[in-house]
Amino acid sequence: MATEAAADDVSDAPEAYDALLDRVRRWNTVGSAAGVLGWDQQVMMPEGGTPARSKQLSALSSIRHDMVTDEETGALLDELDDADLSAERAAVVREVRREYERADAVPVELVEEISETSSEALQAWEQARAEDDFEHFAPYLEKHVELKREYAEHIDPDRDPYEVLFEDFEPCLSMERAESILDELRETLVPMIDAIRESDADLAVDTFEGTFPAETQEELARDALDLVGYDFDRGRLDVSSHPFTSGNQFDCRITTRFDEADPLGAIGSTIHEYGHAQYNLGLPQDEWGTPLGESRDLSVHESQSRLWENHVGRSRAFWEQFLPAFHERFPETEDATVEDAYEAFNQVHEDNLIRVEADELTYHLHIIVRFEIERDLIRGDLAIEDVPEVWNDKYEEYLGIRPPTDADGCLQDIHWSHGNFGYFPTYSLGSVMAAQLFEAADGEIDDLEDKIAAGDFEDLQAWLGENVHQHGSRYETNELVKRATGEDFSADAFTDYVEAKYGELYGI
Amino acid sequence: MATEAAADDVSDAPEAYDALLDRVRRWNTVGSAAGVLGWDQQVMMPEGGTPARSKQLSALSSIRHDMVTDEETGALLDELDDADLSAERAAVVREVRREYERADAVPVELVEEISETSSEALQAWEQARAEDDFEHFAPYLEKHVELKREYAEHIDPDRDPYEVLFEDFEPCLSMERAESILDELRETLVPMIDAIRESDADLAVDTFEGTFPAETQEELARDALDLVGYDFDRGRLDVSSHPFTSGNQFDCRITTRFDEADPLGAIGSTIHEYGHAQYNLGLPQDEWGTPLGESRDLSVHESQSRLWENHVGRSRAFWEQFLPAFHERFPETEDATVEDAYEAFNQVHEDNLIRVEADELTYHLHIIVRFEIERDLIRGDLAIEDVPEVWNDKYEEYLGIRPPTDADGCLQDIHWSHGNFGYFPTYSLGSVMAAQLFEAADGEIDDLEDKIAAGDFEDLQAWLGENVHQHGSRYETNELVKRATGEDFSADAFTDYVEAKYGELYGI
Repeated sequence: MATEAAADDVSDAPEAYDALLDRVRRWNTVGSAAGVLGWDQQVMMPEGGTPARSKQLSALSSIRHDMVTDEETGALLDELDDADLSAERAAVVREVRREYERADAVPVELVEEISETSSEALQAWEQARAEDDFEHFAPYLEKHVELKREYAEHIDPDRDPYEVLFEDFEPCLSMERAESILDELRETLVPMIDAIRESDADLAVDTFEGTFPAETQEELARDALDLVGYDFDRGRLDVSSHPFTSGNQFDCRITTRFDEADPLGAIGSTIHEYGHAQYNLGLPQDEWGTPLGESRDLSVHESQSRLWENHVGRSRAFWEQFLPAFHERFPETEDATVEDAYEAFNQVHEDNLIRVEADELTYHLHIIVRFEIERDLIRGDLAIEDVPEVWNDKYEEYLGIRPPTDADGCLQDIHWSHGNFGYFPTYSLGSVMAAQLFEAADGEIDDLEDKIAAGDFEDLQAWLGENVHQHGSRYETNELVKRATGEDFSADAFTDYVEAKYGELYGI
Repeated sequence: MATEAAADDVSDAPEAYDALLDRVRRWNTVGSAAGVLGWDQQVMMPEGGTPARSKQLSALSSIRHDMVTDEETGALLDELDDADLSAERAAVVREVRREYERADAVPVELVEEISETSSEALQAWEQARAEDDFEHFAPYLEKHVELKREYAEHIDPDRDPYEVLFEDFEPCLSMERAESILDELRETLVPMIDAIRESDADLAVDTFEGTFPAETQEELARDALDLVGYDFDRGRLDVSSHPFTSGNQFDCRITTRFDEADPLGAIGSTIHEYGHAQYNLGLPQDEWGTPLGESRDLSVHESQSRLWENHVGRSRAFWEQFLPAFHERFPETEDATVEDAYEAFNQVHEDNLIRVEADELTYHLHIIVRFEIERDLIRGDLAIEDVPEVWNDKYEEYLGIRPPTDADGCLQDIHWSHGNFGYFPTYSLGSVMAAQLFEAADGEIDDLEDKIAAGDFEDLQAWLGENVHQHGSRYETNELVKRATGEDFSADAFTDYVEAKYGELYGI
């Protein structure tokens, strides 16, 4: 009798499933507590708080790691191996197993060594960038590459280590699909940007020149958030040195920053972060702490921010609605027309060397340079000392510009100092996905452009909620995109979008 | 050989001590992370964040509890039982053992039941107070009294349960000493307040009448903090509905609130919280997370806030320095003299029924009413249904006023809805201790009053740092006071202080 009952339990496995879910909820709750501490550190914490905060974050991270890798997690997953689960439960187990196996495969000592190397590398990178001295950073970059290759080998010694690292950020999108999208982007964009450089189009680029006080910019950013419908009962807007979004379906906060010479920058970044927040706020509340209540991976998250930033915020329709608020906050801009704003917000900065200052088009070539270099570093096909020259050659080849210094070249980004290889591509993949999702939404929503022009975002919100947000991590990336758009994830919609938009703007 | 080595280890026990300390640091780090979440909840969190925040806090609390009560903690403490430790290490072990034994004695189920009862009781209390309906709250109060008696019985079935509960807040101050101090307070204050009521002294109480915008009050609060030397690189000032202090020696933040009709209220409460913060910021940084780096108990903490609020902030000397800032922020008060400010800040509100609005004198009778009632409830000497009448009788006897409603009577404070019995006395004990510490500092620092009048707080800070802050929980309460002042903790200095001060103010 007892044995039979036990066998029954394994077959539909409610007990093991519930026990696993309790554990998962608990570790994700600890993770979300760490998220609050991280937000506080970047937004509120006085400088002196750093030593205590580092220890608090490291304790929570190690507690969470211990929970994930606890042998009981493995035992419950084993028990669920042959269980007959609903599709939804099977998806939960799939996600938990993936996290468990990866965490379990890598020795804690190596994780700690990477974390310590990151602290040292961050300092070295800051100094190297300040002094334009790549050689000062090179040994730390080399150490990171070695450690991350070792890390990848623990996870799977038989696969391309870059692919394994990419999965830390995109666990369920194939490297092959990602590479083919990035290749297509490069092939589309290099000639386009070349044509734009040659074009004699005369865009209204000096529409918003002047000084725009941060305080008024903040009011305008709040106007924009009110317009698109950010729920301030479940969020906040604050200022931080790098804009970011942090939180969950109950409380998801965004930050922005203000450049007094560039009022469009804060509008763009605020709407961008709003798109991230809207995703988290749209996750099912009942499933908080389980994979069904967690967002899918970085490309999907970036698709939400880029959809709002680019396809809404950079559209003529949006500016028809928003320009009066701009005029009201900054009466000195009252002569600017919707067309002026549209052109100013969409000009291509073909001579810009800095990724975070790039426009919607050139941005992806900045990414592709980084992707190709980090991939070759991790695969062992590129030596550390050759990074600056390869970087500069690629900028020249893809963007037609050559960085005069490494500070404005291969030292400009923080990511490699954290040992994050495989992260950069997710930015471009997210933009590409945004175009595909927006095209599908546009096809299903009547008069979407008119609605945006009227400040009515309800149908778009509902479409995104239904097709993306509500699913959490239920579907793997390509399946999510396919269910939402009817097509596999590809660069087609993005290519159509940029060709139409920039063809018209620059007459190319 | 192995056995001998093991025996050696036990005798000076470095390994067990270090292992214990690692555990303690870890659980206190988790506790301090929860503190950040608590601060955020009260100061920054949007309303919608509550469900996630409750779960985060409850997870961290349960993780911390599991670490404390883990059998390894008990085993290490056992191993250290006969160890030959330095006095400092012995103090650490004493503090850890006390926490372990208390946490270990009470079944988790009971802790959870108390926590659930608190949630229900809080709602019931809010409704009862809004509707002036004690009977609605009575069953929850009764349940809390029962549960807390049970809680005390688990800890020590042979002792007065109120004494056991008091130790949750004052683990190392004897109930006997506390009661004798409170008795002496009552005997001193009841006739004094009676005499003040009869006095025909004409204090300048309408000096600061008018409307004082919150924004300017905040600037003035920052002036006050700058004057006393709050380190904004290790702290923040924010607004919350109830002022409080939260943090550690690296990052200790205060909050205040503003009543536009009462600019002195915010000054008093800001300086009060500053005193709390100054204590935490003065704890040794190297010992953070160990008992040597944690503050002593509630009465000692309150002694630091009350010392700054009452003995500095309410002094003539302070106003000599601070009044110009007041005039500058609020030019309409420019006719007010130091004496006017001193009288306005020190008037006795003999008809006030509300504890949190009480002055420096009547405050303690509000406390003593609560202390006597909660003690009798827990000891089984008072029935729940008799609380309102006993409350009102005591107000009449001690303060000469009778609350017209229970909302302004026994329902005014939140503490009992949390099941906190034994907390109230610590407020008065802290004020009494403040007087004793200030008297000692005044005796040792040359011209302290002149220094305060000159805005020079360095010697006072140094004295408090040396005599109180730097010791953490190294000494038990009475020993700490005795080392700092040369005397056992008693009400003598407080009695001398109020008799001199109010004798002069009211001519009594």
